[in-house]
Amino acid sequence: MIANKSTQELYSSFTEKMEQIADVRNAMAVLGWDQETYLPEKGAPLRGQQLTTLSTIAHELFTATELGDTLQELRSRADLTPTQRKNVELSQEDYEKNKKYPASFVADLSQTTNLCYHTWLKARRANDYAEFEPMLARMIQLKKQETHILGFEGHPYNALLNEFEKGATTTMLDTVFDAVKTALTPLLRQIEERPQVNKDFLHLHYERNKQWELGIALLKEMGYDMEAGRQDVSEHPFTTSFNPQDVRVTTRIDEKDFGNMTWSCIHEGGHALYEQGLPMGQYGLPCGEAASLGIHESQSRLWENNVGRSLDFWQHHYPRVQQIFPDNLQQVPLDSFYKGINQVQPSLIRTEADELTYHFHVMIRYEIEKGLLEGTYTTKDLQQVWNRYYLDYLHVHVPNDTQGILQDIHWSHGSFGYFPTYSLGSFYAAQFFTAAQQQLPGLSQQIAGGQYTALLAWLREQIHQYGRFYTSNELCEKVTGNKLDFQYFLRYATEKYKGIYGF
Amino acid sequence: MIANKSTQELYSSFTEKMEQIADVRNAMAVLGWDQETYLPEKGAPLRGQQLTTLSTIAHELFTATELGDTLQELRSRADLTPTQRKNVELSQEDYEKNKKYPASFVADLSQTTNLCYHTWLKARRANDYAEFEPMLARMIQLKKQETHILGFEGHPYNALLNEFEKGATTTMLDTVFDAVKTALTPLLRQIEERPQVNKDFLHLHYERNKQWELGIALLKEMGYDMEAGRQDVSEHPFTTSFNPQDVRVTTRIDEKDFGNMTWSCIHEGGHALYEQGLPMGQYGLPCGEAASLGIHESQSRLWENNVGRSLDFWQHHYPRVQQIFPDNLQQVPLDSFYKGINQVQPSLIRTEADELTYHFHVMIRYEIEKGLLEGTYTTKDLQQVWNRYYLDYLHVHVPNDTQGILQDIHWSHGSFGYFPTYSLGSFYAAQFFTAAQQQLPGLSQQIAGGQYTALLAWLREQIHQYGRFYTSNELCEKVTGNKLDFQYFLRYATEKYKGIYGF
Repeated sequence: MIANKSTQELYSSFTEKMEQIADVRNAMAVLGWDQETYLPEKGAPLRGQQLTTLSTIAHELFTATELGDTLQELRSRADLTPTQRKNVELSQEDYEKNKKYPASFVADLSQTTNLCYHTWLKARRANDYAEFEPMLARMIQLKKQETHILGFEGHPYNALLNEFEKGATTTMLDTVFDAVKTALTPLLRQIEERPQVNKDFLHLHYERNKQWELGIALLKEMGYDMEAGRQDVSEHPFTTSFNPQDVRVTTRIDEKDFGNMTWSCIHEGGHALYEQGLPMGQYGLPCGEAASLGIHESQSRLWENNVGRSLDFWQHHYPRVQQIFPDNLQQVPLDSFYKGINQVQPSLIRTEADELTYHFHVMIRYEIEKGLLEGTYTTKDLQQVWNRYYLDYLHVHVPNDTQGILQDIHWSHGSFGYFPTYSLGSFYAAQFFTAAQQQLPGLSQQIAGGQYTALLAWLREQIHQYGRFYTSNELCEKVTGNKLDFQYFLRYATEKYKGIYGF
Repeated sequence: MIANKSTQELYSSFTEKMEQIADVRNAMAVLGWDQETYLPEKGAPLRGQQLTTLSTIAHELFTATELGDTLQELRSRADLTPTQRKNVELSQEDYEKNKKYPASFVADLSQTTNLCYHTWLKARRANDYAEFEPMLARMIQLKKQETHILGFEGHPYNALLNEFEKGATTTMLDTVFDAVKTALTPLLRQIEERPQVNKDFLHLHYERNKQWELGIALLKEMGYDMEAGRQDVSEHPFTTSFNPQDVRVTTRIDEKDFGNMTWSCIHEGGHALYEQGLPMGQYGLPCGEAASLGIHESQSRLWENNVGRSLDFWQHHYPRVQQIFPDNLQQVPLDSFYKGINQVQPSLIRTEADELTYHFHVMIRYEIEKGLLEGTYTTKDLQQVWNRYYLDYLHVHVPNDTQGILQDIHWSHGSFGYFPTYSLGSFYAAQFFTAAQQQLPGLSQQIAGGQYTALLAWLREQIHQYGRFYTSNELCEKVTGNKLDFQYFLRYATEKYKGIYGF
């Protein structure tokens, strides 16, 4: 029956099903966005149930035998365009992966995740890792099971990494984080020997409304399309997309911290520009999705750091910011402002870390996750392991679990293999930005003039338009001529901090 | 197989399926709410597709044979509680009705509705009924077909009425609207013979933020639970519920019209109190749903008019409102304010009509809908028919289609049989409020003191808690001892306007 259908017909039936699945998933994303922005307190429990129902439906649709058969048949057709073929191949991969999970495991994981998250919330409030430990142990057990369900080559952690960054392996990450350790440690020590730069002026009173207006202005100037998105306030800033024509960002505002809102806006703006740049005609299909979490993070980091913490960027924006907050900044020259916003200072909390020490935070989590999966560590050791790592790598003493091992939500959600993509994002960003500088003459002057059109067009052409057509590895090679190479970040960081700390 | 299951088991499987359907429908409601409040412009087309997909899924779930079999078997069980039995009976009724629609008809109706709506938008902008007429004719054709799909006794219009108000018939409505015509016409003429009251002070400048704060304060004082809901701004005010713990209202603010925001807040607040009062334990089941549109409207109208336009109500609130807007209202005594907000003045636009002439607007639409279905009118006649009715009943001359036959969205949506529930709501409200006055000693003084706790508790106990357990007819008789009787509204209106216009 299916074999008699034309490729055109089959492909249409495939895309129709994929769009339907995307519609359900995007409806979930709307409910999720609402949950973080506007949901009244008492509405939370049933919202959870509504999300679970939609998730079950999406899973059922994406494991339907008919879809599997269509994919199977399409694989055998010779008359697919390259994009169509890629969509079929990747969808089949996703489909086969989905089918591997026994229903009982899915239910168990979903239940454990829910429990684990609530236990984490309680334990963090109580500042007591011991309360969280048994649930975390249970979660690790399930995650080990998941590596066997998914299958892997080499290290079991590879199975989980692949969920977030296709093709990433411990071999690759060991190389990357060895470089972090051996190259960034001396750089950090060099900085520590120099007199510290001042950033006190960033913590004066910055009025909420004025910050809000500034954030919106920055987003618009970056090229974020406000008719295809919006900004709202949430506890933790995030970007969410319901399709390339409806990509929303959130921010938070701390009146005692100029930086919080500013770079969260630029960061989420970077994510959002990627989503707005995905091809609308590939809605619901792999080629309409982001390449990987690492590539997604490369877009946010490139805007946040390579552009948004550069002297060029603030040459244009600083005079205006001084005008908005004259009492705080009129007496602070651009050069001091630039140094202040780039202060390097080892600290306890990952999300508040500077551009350099950030990667030690990620590395610590990577070491721990790998160790848990291979059995080097057990959850019982973790508090001690955590605190020792912070002392060794960052020379900071962890005073309690809330500021230590309980700070991040990820493990309670069962997200193992996620953290490394944060560092990969920065390293891809440095490499991409170097390529942009080479390929776009005058980029530095454009940024200093508040002009990002050429840069955005370049990102759209080089990266955004492809969706998942290329893996992150392939994309990196296509755009930069090389595989991911930590040296780009090292060069960028060394040069930057040399200028700022004068060594 | 199914016959071997215990009633308990079967009922659980039934409720589980119903909750799942409710989850999907409530997800649609969230997407709908977002569409009217926060959706960026370019996000509209795919939002439409996402809603269609969810609607298809909900329809499939609610026509699944397994659900039908479960319902069939449950009907035969003797050991159901009365509430359980009612849930089963009503669900089976809904299920059978859903099954009646051929898939081709559903698709045709959905497509026509979409086209019809967009044609209406264009025609209204162009102020040209002729542009809308062919699509409306097509819609009427489908609606006639629908009456045969659904089946009916007596008049075909009964089939459509039943969709919104179970048990309503043209016989019942003819009686009601005959009373409107014969009793309200002389009342209106009496009013028109008296000097008009002044309401110019309602159209001075009322600052947006102050109006917003006042609206929120009124909602809270009525007893609307802000932790189980929220207010936002939309073009047309509405209430939507995702479950009794998340019931949201919207309003609009016109700085040149004190009334627009004020009574829309109270009106939507009335709807929202009903939804917040539905039994949480019946989520997804008929006994967790509103009894009918007429009963829903009775709750909004009771608060908006019987409470919110009464002298008692403003005795409490007016001094505060004077303080908020001293320039506009300090010189306007309470008595003049009360008269102004109750001004009767025949006009062209239904949604802006006063409490009395409103029912002529509804009656006109009722006469036309009935006439279209029985063939007395064709869509080609309608512009003329409309304009003559407005001249005859309201003595107003319709200057153009935008302010005439094209003013309301309902027909373009295929909502025939909906309008009458607006009038029924007012008439139920008058009858319910009379019963409340009899059963709650001191109600008038309580309202004059800003105390609505007893009234709300009475509504919760008499009406809200039952969901769809009783039909509107049964509910009315249970609460008031009588069937719906227009005389309650007539007495209320006569007494009120006698006081205001002094005849």
